[in-house]
Parts: sequence; C-alpha cells; structure tokens
Amino acid sequence: MQIVVVGLGVIGGSFTMALKEAGYDDVYGIDVNEETLVKAKNLGLIKEGFTSGEEIVKSADLIIISLYPGLVKKFINDNKNNFKDGAIITDATGIKKMFIEHIVNILPENIDFVFGHPMAGREKKGIDFATNEVFKGANYILTPVARNKEENLKTIEDLVYKLGFKRVRRITPQHHDEMIGYTSQLPHSLAVALVNSDIEGRETGSFIGDSYRDLTRIANINEDLWSELFLGNKENLLNCIESFEVELDKIKDAIKHDDKEALKTLFIKSTKRREKL
Amino acid sequence: MQIVVVGLGVIGGSFTMALKEAGYDDVYGIDVNEETLVKAKNLGLIKEGFTSGEEIVKSADLIIISLYPGLVKKFINDNKNNFKDGAIITDATGIKKMFIEHIVNILPENIDFVFGHPMAGREKKGIDFATNEVFKGANYILTPVARNKEENLKTIEDLVYKLGFKRVRRITPQHHDEMIGYTSQLPHSLAVALVNSDIEGRETGSFIGDSYRDLTRIANINEDLWSELFLGNKENLLNCIESFEVELDKIKDAIKHDDKEALKTLFIKSTKRREKL
Repeated sequence: MQIVVVGLGVIGGSFTMALKEAGYDDVYGIDVNEETLVKAKNLGLIKEGFTSGEEIVKSADLIIISLYPGLVKKFINDNKNNFKDGAIITDATGIKKMFIEHIVNILPENIDFVFGHPMAGREKKGIDFATNEVFKGANYILTPVARNKEENLKTIEDLVYKLGFKRVRRITPQHHDEMIGYTSQLPHSLAVALVNSDIEGRETGSFIGDSYRDLTRIANINEDLWSELFLGNKENLLNCIESFEVELDKIKDAIKHDDKEALKTLFIKSTKRREKL
Repeated sequence: MQIVVVGLGVIGGSFTMALKEAGYDDVYGIDVNEETLVKAKNLGLIKEGFTSGEEIVKSADLIIISLYPGLVKKFINDNKNNFKDGAIITDATGIKKMFIEHIVNILPENIDFVFGHPMAGREKKGIDFATNEVFKGANYILTPVARNKEENLKTIEDLVYKLGFKRVRRITPQHHDEMIGYTSQLPHSLAVALVNSDIEGRETGSFIGDSYRDLTRIANINEDLWSELFLGNKENLLNCIESFEVELDKIKDAIKHDDKEALKTLFIKSTKRREKL
C-alpha cells in the first residue's frame, strides 16, 4: 500500500514515525517546506518528498492529510483530478461537521474520504516536535459519512490501532463537534483566558505549582490553527463556554455568601466525576 | 534539633519523608489517626507518634504544622502552654493574611511562628499518597511578620532548601494571597467548573486528550480543605475570577463575531506569556 502523508508538521510528522515503527515502508510526504521534506527523508520517515501533490498523488492508495482545515479543502480542490481511482483519504482535523460539508461538496465520486481525528497532539508545531509517542494509548475518532465504504472505514480503523491508538470510536460529525467543543476547545479557551488574566509584570513564575503549570500548558497555542478550529465549531463552543460560566457562577456565589456547604457540594461533584474518567 | 510534624497527611507525611532523606532523625509525629502514626513509625519516618501535642510539644525545637487552616488555630490554642521556650513553628497553609491574623492573636510571646507555604501537593489525601518527590524543584513561600526573628526565618529557609525546594521567596501575607488566588485557587475553580459543566451521562472519557486530563486533574479536590482555603481568601479569589471572566468574554466575543484576527491576538498573547514561565 502506497501511503502519502500531506503536511509534515507535528501531527503529520508523527504519522510518518508511527507508520515507520508499524512497518509501513512505502511512505511519501508532501509539504510546502523543502527543508522539512529533507529532514523527513534523512530520518528515513519518507521515501521521497514533494512540494505539491500533482505527481505522487496519482499512485497513492492512502492519503493522510494533516493540514489546517482551510488547507485541506484547498488540497482536495487542487488535486481533484490527480487522485487514483478508489483511493482512500483520511485527515486529522479537529472539527468535523461544517468542515466535512465543505469537503464532500468538492470530492470526486471515486474517492473515499474517511474523516478522522487523533485525540493526541502537542502544543508545539513543526516536524521537530513530532513523535509517535503521543499516539500511544490515545483515543481516535472516526466520523463516518453516508458515502463511506465499510471496508475503507475498517482499513483506517485497523491502521490507527497499528499506529498505537488504543480506542477508536465511530460517531456522527455533529456528536464529534459537540464533544470536542467540550473536551478540547473549551479547555483551550480557559487556558488562554487564565494566562491572559494575569496582571502584567508580576513575577508569577515564582508562585506557581503543578496546577497552574498543567492548566496553562495549552495556552501555548498555534494561533492560525486554533482560530480556524474555534470558528469552525462556533455554536458548540459558545454553548460549552456558557455552560461553563453557569458552573463558575455557582462557585462565585458560594464564595460571596460564605456558603461552605455549597462549595463542598460542588467539589464533591467534580471529584466524583473526575475519578470516573 | 527535635522536630515534630503535626498532621501526617499528604503534606505532613511528605515532610517526614523529606526530613528523613535530608538526614534529620529526631523527628516525631502528631496525628489524630492512630493507624497513620503506626504507618509512619513502621516506615521509619518518625521515632514515635502521638495523638495530641501535650507530651511531645514540650521538648520540640521545631514544629511543622500541616493541618487544615481551622485546625492550626485549634492546635495553637490547645498547646499554648506546652510550647518550649524559643520554639519555632512553621506551617504549610495555603492562605495567609486572615489566617495569620487569627494565629498571631493567640500565639504565646516566646514562640516564633514562621508562616510558610510549600507550592507543592497532590490531589489525593492521606499519608499513603505522601511523597517528598513533589517537593523537589518546587517553590516555597515565606510570609514574614513583624515579630519573626531573622535567624528563625533563616532556619526555615535553610531547612526547606535541604528538603528539596529550589526557590524560597519572602513576600507579605497580602501579596501571597493575591498570587495564590491567581495561581492556585483560580485554576482549582476553573477545573471544578469545567468538570461540573459536562452534560450528565455522556461518555466523555472516550473523547479526551491530554489537555482535558491536565486541566481537570485538580477537579479531584479535598472539599474540606479547599472550601476553607477559598473562603479564607474570598476577596482575592473573587477578583481573580472576575478578571478571568473578562478574558473569557473576549474569546467569546471574537467567536461570536467571527473575528479571526481578535482570536489570534489573544492566542499570541497567551503563547508569549506561557513561554516566559
């Protein structure tokens, strides 16, 4: 099976590493950055690198796209006449419903796009931070659409287990976006707001423990990618933020009214829920 | 130097472990739980355990109190006639200003209480979760008061460096509470509200990555301790929550208005600040 990974950033690069470790050796890379392609080739992660899809896409059986949402659409558009008949495409995009609608509209009939989302990543960008370690034991989500062939869904499922993921779930794009709004985008919003609400010029670094460190790690955020993700899942994320605010208000009210019992009740609830995870 | 650790929970227990590793061997423990005392003795962490202070406090040169804020006050009250002349007391309480005012009012003249706060802990409670590993490389805060003798402040400072802490800062109780409201209590509030805002009955566990895991670790929270800490630092914590809400609103507004540039600006700010830590 000839595999092409498109976008050798932190996720695409990690895919090439995981593919290598899993024994796939007919792997090629596409990236706009030639230096990245040289690195990937020198590391033995790809057989050959290309700065556009034109040539290599024609023979690819499987294409793994790890680009920003807007660029995935562009890649499909640019290559719609290049894909091999029956090729499978998959992606790593963190939003699905609106994104999938855009893609399905431009996708050639004879290509099957299995939409996926590895629940793993790093806050840094670029192939230098790629590592398939983050895939190991992580969750993977597939969001099948009506036109997907079961055998192709199965191919991707089998593949990601081989790459180290421990659990693959199939859910609707709508359900994906609701869940991701809550488990990923809301935490990123909170981390950003937490860091930005610090008073300028304080020596905060001398007063932090693990909790602040953990909660703000993802405030180090790729602004191009995440602004696309937030706006591509607008309604769900706004709902999540509002539900969060309701809960934060409960804590605030309890503090304002010196209501120790109310605080304890909220803490007991969160403890029970967290332990269940 | 005879040392007594009062409260052999996760922090007190960690103190006994760190003391042992640093070579202090004249160490005793006080805890209401006899089973805990037996465990500590069997582990070689204390020479002897006591369920009250009456006896052992009389000969102690240094007393390290790791109790909930309200219980520290009770311990001082119960033992005000037991302390050895010139003894040093220190604590690990996460709030300072209001707490110190209460203590200083009841403290005998000939005792020096050096108020401290190890910026390290675990979300679990009890000696079974104690480990001096959490102290290694962590921050320590001292909040001197007018009556503290410099030599005693120095004694505690030297001690905590020996126990593995890497940075000791002296600040005012007021400054401590402002900083801790932001770096510790606000993150705990956010983690609790985040977990509590989940929709009941969803299979959230299948959709989480490291970010959700990191941000919610401290939603597993000791309700007795943290309700005291929150209410003992009420004004500062409410201010922090309100500043946070202002920043969260900026993100919300940018999403509502599809303002990609505004989002990016917020993300760039948080990234820069986080990288500086």
